[in-house]
Amino acid sequence: MTQKHNIILQPSGSRGQVEEGMSVRSAARELGVDIESICAENATCGKCMVLIEEGRFEKYNIESKRENVSPVSADEAAYFSRRPKLLKDKGWEVGQVRLSCQCKIHGDVLINVPEESRGNKQIVRKTASNREIEIKPSIRKYLVTMSPPNLERPIADWERLAKGIETSMQLVRGADAKVPRWYELDIDYQCLRGLSKTLRDSKWNVTVSVWQDKEVIEVQAGYVEDSYGAAVDIGSTTVALYLCNLRTGEVLASESEMNPQIVYGEDVMSRIQYSIEHPDGLEKLHKAIISTLNKLLKQAVKTVNEKLNETFGLDTGETSTRLTRPASIKVEEILEMVLVGNSTMHHVLLNLHPKDLGLAPFVPTIHKSMDIKARELGIHINSSGNIHVLPTIASFVGADTSAMILAEEPHKQDENWLLIDVGTNAELILGNRKRLVCTSTPTGPALEGAHVEYGMRAAPGAIERVQIDESTFEPKYKIVGEDDWNKGKAKGICGSAIIDAVAELFRAGIVDSRGKFKKELSTKRVRQGEKGWEYVIAWAEETSIGRDIPMTQQDVRQIQLAKAALFTASRTLLKRSGLQDPDKVILAGGFGSYIDKEKAMLIGLIPDCDLKNVYAVGNAAGDGARIALLNVEKRNEIDAVTRKVERFELPTDPEFQNQFMLATSFPHMSEPFPHIAHLIPNRVVDPMAKNFMK
Amino acid sequence: MTQKHNIILQPSGSRGQVEEGMSVRSAARELGVDIESICAENATCGKCMVLIEEGRFEKYNIESKRENVSPVSADEAAYFSRRPKLLKDKGWEVGQVRLSCQCKIHGDVLINVPEESRGNKQIVRKTASNREIEIKPSIRKYLVTMSPPNLERPIADWERLAKGIETSMQLVRGADAKVPRWYELDIDYQCLRGLSKTLRDSKWNVTVSVWQDKEVIEVQAGYVEDSYGAAVDIGSTTVALYLCNLRTGEVLASESEMNPQIVYGEDVMSRIQYSIEHPDGLEKLHKAIISTLNKLLKQAVKTVNEKLNETFGLDTGETSTRLTRPASIKVEEILEMVLVGNSTMHHVLLNLHPKDLGLAPFVPTIHKSMDIKARELGIHINSSGNIHVLPTIASFVGADTSAMILAEEPHKQDENWLLIDVGTNAELILGNRKRLVCTSTPTGPALEGAHVEYGMRAAPGAIERVQIDESTFEPKYKIVGEDDWNKGKAKGICGSAIIDAVAELFRAGIVDSRGKFKKELSTKRVRQGEKGWEYVIAWAEETSIGRDIPMTQQDVRQIQLAKAALFTASRTLLKRSGLQDPDKVILAGGFGSYIDKEKAMLIGLIPDCDLKNVYAVGNAAGDGARIALLNVEKRNEIDAVTRKVERFELPTDPEFQNQFMLATSFPHMSEPFPHIAHLIPNRVVDPMAKNFMK
Repeated sequence: MTQKHNIILQPSGSRGQVEEGMSVRSAARELGVDIESICAENATCGKCMVLIEEGRFEKYNIESKRENVSPVSADEAAYFSRRPKLLKDKGWEVGQVRLSCQCKIHGDVLINVPEESRGNKQIVRKTASNREIEIKPSIRKYLVTMSPPNLERPIADWERLAKGIETSMQLVRGADAKVPRWYELDIDYQCLRGLSKTLRDSKWNVTVSVWQDKEVIEVQAGYVEDSYGAAVDIGSTTVALYLCNLRTGEVLASESEMNPQIVYGEDVMSRIQYSIEHPDGLEKLHKAIISTLNKLLKQAVKTVNEKLNETFGLDTGETSTRLTRPASIKVEEILEMVLVGNSTMHHVLLNLHPKDLGLAPFVPTIHKSMDIKARELGIHINSSGNIHVLPTIASFVGADTSAMILAEEPHKQDENWLLIDVGTNAELILGNRKRLVCTSTPTGPALEGAHVEYGMRAAPGAIERVQIDESTFEPKYKIVGEDDWNKGKAKGICGSAIIDAVAELFRAGIVDSRGKFKKELSTKRVRQGEKGWEYVIAWAEETSIGRDIPMTQQDVRQIQLAKAALFTASRTLLKRSGLQDPDKVILAGGFGSYIDKEKAMLIGLIPDCDLKNVYAVGNAAGDGARIALLNVEKRNEIDAVTRKVERFELPTDPEFQNQFMLATSFPHMSEPFPHIAHLIPNRVVDPMAKNFMK
Repeated sequence: MTQKHNIILQPSGSRGQVEEGMSVRSAARELGVDIESICAENATCGKCMVLIEEGRFEKYNIESKRENVSPVSADEAAYFSRRPKLLKDKGWEVGQVRLSCQCKIHGDVLINVPEESRGNKQIVRKTASNREIEIKPSIRKYLVTMSPPNLERPIADWERLAKGIETSMQLVRGADAKVPRWYELDIDYQCLRGLSKTLRDSKWNVTVSVWQDKEVIEVQAGYVEDSYGAAVDIGSTTVALYLCNLRTGEVLASESEMNPQIVYGEDVMSRIQYSIEHPDGLEKLHKAIISTLNKLLKQAVKTVNEKLNETFGLDTGETSTRLTRPASIKVEEILEMVLVGNSTMHHVLLNLHPKDLGLAPFVPTIHKSMDIKARELGIHINSSGNIHVLPTIASFVGADTSAMILAEEPHKQDENWLLIDVGTNAELILGNRKRLVCTSTPTGPALEGAHVEYGMRAAPGAIERVQIDESTFEPKYKIVGEDDWNKGKAKGICGSAIIDAVAELFRAGIVDSRGKFKKELSTKRVRQGEKGWEYVIAWAEETSIGRDIPMTQQDVRQIQLAKAALFTASRTLLKRSGLQDPDKVILAGGFGSYIDKEKAMLIGLIPDCDLKNVYAVGNAAGDGARIALLNVEKRNEIDAVTRKVERFELPTDPEFQNQFMLATSFPHMSEPFPHIAHLIPNRVVDPMAKNFMK
């Protein structure tokens, strides 16, 4: 019978008995502890470093000694001798630190697995759910060393490599893992074209990148540790790109650009219109976004390389070795891109005509996610790499909403969550693990500060907060960039302040439940302006533009329409799902992050619920894109989830118009609002609405 | 309990009881008889026509009546009313002939399934094995009729279509068939781009072409019956293309062209050399073959359309209906191409550098078969269609040999077969279902009539047969295009006559076992010519060139080298396989079809065996390409078979040179030759060879 030894793994505390002569890495796997490796146990990658701790460990009743494992091998010694800085920084000495793939067990040992060597890396996403995302990229790298061909074994280059990949995969993943047989592997045709040269130039020692465990998409000479991927959120206004390390999940650069399609139309409807009216309209829109993506890719690579230069000094062209200067990254090392965007952006990106998105019955060309070779779209990542586009749900509920679902995971909840992404158009998802329903509604640009008399973006000089005293009717306001209230010179009002202002005008009784200005109030701030009644938030002398900044009757009306649309959409979804209230409300996008949630509820922008259950989660679409980039399993998950989402078209709901009219009131007239009722002075509530205040 | 009826199906004689109200097509399937249908039982395609026979059938003890099935439906009546010519030609009347998808069973019936309606069509290949090939193309067509989208069901175009395809596949294949679920189907990206327009233009009634049961590669408006495919054999000298109907297997056009690469080198070695010496060499070779393929495709389509015009008159643009004029075919309707060729042709086609094929250790870039989108290679079939390239086996045993194996199926035999494809290079495959070994050997151009003093192609004026009287040493010869011997004016000697002449020179004792002319013979035909000794086959006055046509010592030497190489290769394979003799010898290519098998054996070109076991099978590579085009299962089969073929490199065999020298003799000096010994006069045999004659 083979001798057995006691092994303890820290920090997990896993322990057990393993056979004499087994490598530490294999032993750890047997005890359920995954240790990284990408060099197929060749003592090259150094990913599998562990520490052999010395001493008598009473708790486990063992005595651990360095002599209980095999001596440091020549390969290990060579590996560590090239990394003096690592040893110094960490305070490790060779013999204490070992490559677990090389180090064999000959006696009892206690082994410490440092953070960086542990398998199953995760990134933490801070959201309503605060969950961890496991890094499982679609692309994995393997070092493959082959014996060169000779007359006795003149097997073809690809088959030689494929057999090596099978062996390497098995070593990296462990004997039990189900890896494809060599003849089940494929190689991308364009990648194949360079294969023979790379194999010979590298002396039959290459790193391959395998996509989805089935297709080789890159073959690089020698040992290469990292690959990169890009997650992109194509907004109607802004295109944001996150360049990530596919192994660690780290975001190396975030870049954004204006969407260049804006010159063809400000919102999606006008761009669809443009594509219908101009024979080359689609082509122009498509080319514009492709060239922006290529520009962002270039910028991101430049940013990363500049950071590297700052940290390590200029690239000397040496091969990357751990903790010495990593080599500059090249755009061809970006092996995958995940894209999200609303359905119109999705279609234009894919060069699919968006016409039917804008015409009844509002039908996309495709829902399901797609993988398209980068070269087919002219996107300048590695030409064998894929562009993965997340699924669309409906004409106005696009791949960005799919990404939001992936980021927030309503489909894994027992509670019913209401997710709202507000822009010119609002998309809403409601439900839980059993059922998800969705709809969308135009909200107009008012909520984003556009088409409002003194509306502006949340830039310096913008009023971002407003309060109004309900007895004096005097306002307080806060300007972007100022720490204190009523400081600085105002230039305009941004989205969050517009909501504040409307809510405060209502709460102070300056506008009534129906949104009309009361004309008999004792304040000169309420006055008949050029375009009807208005309330002056900042007098001319307090501004940098030398003019009074008022909130007009027209502005209030715009907000009323927007919030009525959003409220009615929410209520319709709730009703269709047989629910009274959502358990949580999740606001995605920049809008959600800046508004005062209580005031939004006060004017009926979001359904009445406990304020602590309202979350703002920022750019959930971008986060979802990143999740899909870093975890390939999430792609199937979101495809399956979106297939089951039920779509409701509001115009087909007979009650919609009726509900909409009731919802234009403040807060609204259709149901109780217990969570905000206490904020509303009795005098200002509409007699009809009073029924709902109990 | 449901009522049951007795059903008899002819000509198969299948019978059984089926449930009341079942359609004839479903009933037939239950009884194991497959009836065609591609319109998803919409009474549109007419593929499922059957005849209801009337009368009392004593053998089955039933009375069959037309009244025992449902009356002719309006759809059926409409279908047949559009085809008066079909009914007249066949002598059928409506009511007797029915669409089996529409016709329901209400009583006992005897049904005749005409040939054209039977599923599982087959083509017969006449080979050594004379087997039938089932038509199972990689591409199947389905008619899909969808309800248009509306506000209640605004599902995307692709998903709407995919659901329709699932339904249609299930109907066509039968309820028990395992068809993919709609969300498992994919659509080629370029095909997707035209989807929305086609669906709307067609009023949601389209025919889709599905590749490998998984990817939609074409969507055509309305009902379309046929698709086309091309099988291509790229020879070093000639490129041959067969345009086939993918449904019926019929070859609609065969076209061939000279391989344009010939200007860069006559044989593969010189083309490899060219690609090494010129930086743009590969690009030129690659572009040349691609443009020839595109030319052949155009020609083939033209040929088919001209045939249609001759048969039916000019195309009036009407939709194809059965037995009325089919619509002209378009090159975009060619949905797949299967390509074979030697390893150099294979590499150049794929734009892979052939360098390593020509340099030791002679390694191809890839063995396995590939599917590459036509657009990636610039081949002008449907841009979403695939180019399927058969696997290579070794540097000098290419995809043409794989095709030969597929055509001849040595891997399914109990006997040991030796397959030989002779050209400038000869490829040999030996074995049976348990083991296959292969090798190749250069044979030089002599066997094809090149580099022989008066050698020429088998064109008019070429001597194709030679006999020599062993007492008078006078020859008889036959010229291509003449029915009688010694008729016509000779211009040169083609390959088959060169073998004849050498064999006859030996048999008549004019050259000895070692190939040397005997100088003391009493005939003026043997003489010292300009380039040494020679034998005059035709005197100047018998020729059209006004010069004597001799067979020279140099010519005999060339044949000796060629046949020694081929013989040694055969013997080496046999020895390595532990075999004495092959059970069958199969000669592929034009060469095998024209030579006199007995004479080939007499000079030791092919191993000694019973002559009735030597088969010439013509263009087996082209046939194999066609088989792979028409039966998708054959592609996996040949991939699996070629993975297991063992490769032998002759130069690494220590005995090769020794064997080779012995084999230059006539017939050879290495082993017995019982099957030809009786042909050889005692006096002409080398004393050393005599040992083998018993």
